Amino acid sequence: MSISKDPKVSLVGAGPGSSDLITIRGYRTLEDADVILYDALISTDLLQELNPEIPKIYVGKRCGEHSLTQEEINKLIVEKAFIHGHVVRLKGGDPFVFGRASEELEYVESFGIPVTVVPGVTSAIAVPASQGIPVTRRGISSSFWVMTATKRDGSFSEDLELAAKSSATMIILMGVRRFLEIADKIAENRNGLTPFAVIQNGTVENETCVTGLLKDAGSLVDQIDITQPGIIVVGEVVAEHPSFFEEEIQRALYY
Amino acid sequence: MSISKDPKVSLVGAGPGSSDLITIRGYRTLEDADVILYDALISTDLLQELNPEIPKIYVGKRCGEHSLTQEEINKLIVEKAFIHGHVVRLKGGDPFVFGRASEELEYVESFGIPVTVVPGVTSAIAVPASQGIPVTRRGISSSFWVMTATKRDGSFSEDLELAAKSSATMIILMGVRRFLEIADKIAENRNGLTPFAVIQNGTVENETCVTGLLKDAGSLVDQIDITQPGIIVVGEVVAEHPSFFEEEIQRALYY
Repeated sequence: MSISKDPKVSLVGAGPGSSDLITIRGYRTLEDADVILYDALISTDLLQELNPEIPKIYVGKRCGEHSLTQEEINKLIVEKAFIHGHVVRLKGGDPFVFGRASEELEYVESFGIPVTVVPGVTSAIAVPASQGIPVTRRGISSSFWVMTATKRDGSFSEDLELAAKSSATMIILMGVRRFLEIADKIAENRNGLTPFAVIQNGTVENETCVTGLLKDAGSLVDQIDITQPGIIVVGEVVAEHPSFFEEEIQRALYY
Repeated sequence: MSISKDPKVSLVGAGPGSSDLITIRGYRTLEDADVILYDALISTDLLQELNPEIPKIYVGKRCGEHSLTQEEINKLIVEKAFIHGHVVRLKGGDPFVFGRASEELEYVESFGIPVTVVPGVTSAIAVPASQGIPVTRRGISSSFWVMTATKRDGSFSEDLELAAKSSATMIILMGVRRFLEIADKIAENRNGLTPFAVIQNGTVENETCVTGLLKDAGSLVDQIDITQPGIIVVGEVVAEHPSFFEEEIQRALYY
């Protein structure tokens, strides 16, 4: 730690979970940090690999737990930059995918502190991929739509309906808690035979994946731990999942 | 090179351009390769950093140039795996974002050769980010849609219209050649005052970015080299680009 260093801030995307899915530039930036402020869902392996002398401060937010507000995080970044020098703000996935990077970036820049952004592998794409589900596939899906299902006030986004009407692969983040409502909402505009997947703990050891058809969401919801975060994927590409047809055949045979 | 090695294949995403934006896992996989088959748009710096003993074969496809067909690439991967052992198929961005990863994966697996996929940072998100354009931003855009504008037969995708009707940030790949038509098509369903950006050579030295409003696409198209690949971004988030308002003010003053 050096008090005389000029303040600077790097927003770094840590990738989807596993510690070796950060970029080389991201890892080098971490090694250069004077202090690291990290989110929930950051790999503990990654943090443990780094120089133990670098202070590492948890600022994560998780549903239902007491934690810092965005404003408090913004202030802490600036404060630590003036005290320590190089602050690395480490975020899960990619900072610009629902990571509120712009808000932190603008706040920090308003103090005249330079900010750089290091992109990360977004969970929105890599987690389905790790399950063998491609977000696009020639002849099956030529687009994908990444969204949160609900608006700030908790109501469903109008975009959810437009996406359901399209042929896009839908990737819904922060929606597991309301999975059943979301599946029903999509089924209103898309065939009930459309496959879905809910993936939790993506790319790490205890990864789970539940697949099925939209019409069967009600009977499958018990297999999902809706208290944990996860990614919902809806679209024909889910049928690429290796277990998909096998599970469907089992269901057809035994139910 | 070892003839006796068991054949295996890794599909690795190289990231958006710069050689240090590959993941650590991706880089380690490259170091373990017995042969590398790489696409167009892969960083030459990255290839030069690797052991020169590893054969590196260019199999890229670029508009208008003679190159291998997908079928020829598939066959080459299998052939090289049986001859050399570990084939790394290195693709720009993320293999599952219009990378035809599934096709290669299935072909290779049909020979009983195991395949692993290493995700990459997709250009679709990282290239706008490198220009200060977040794909989502709280209160401005809560979703983004990544697509190709045209279908296989060259006609515009119906999804383009649905996306234009939504509030999603639109990210259009492989569309620069028909930029003006695309901008007009979107403007039919979205306000002409919606900002766009066209970014070329993303994250590398000669990166360029043209921004403007959809209604002005016709007068700005000359600033874009439509013979080169690039990424089109449409949505309010483009106004986050640092030069955006400055350029708009200049235009308002001088035209």
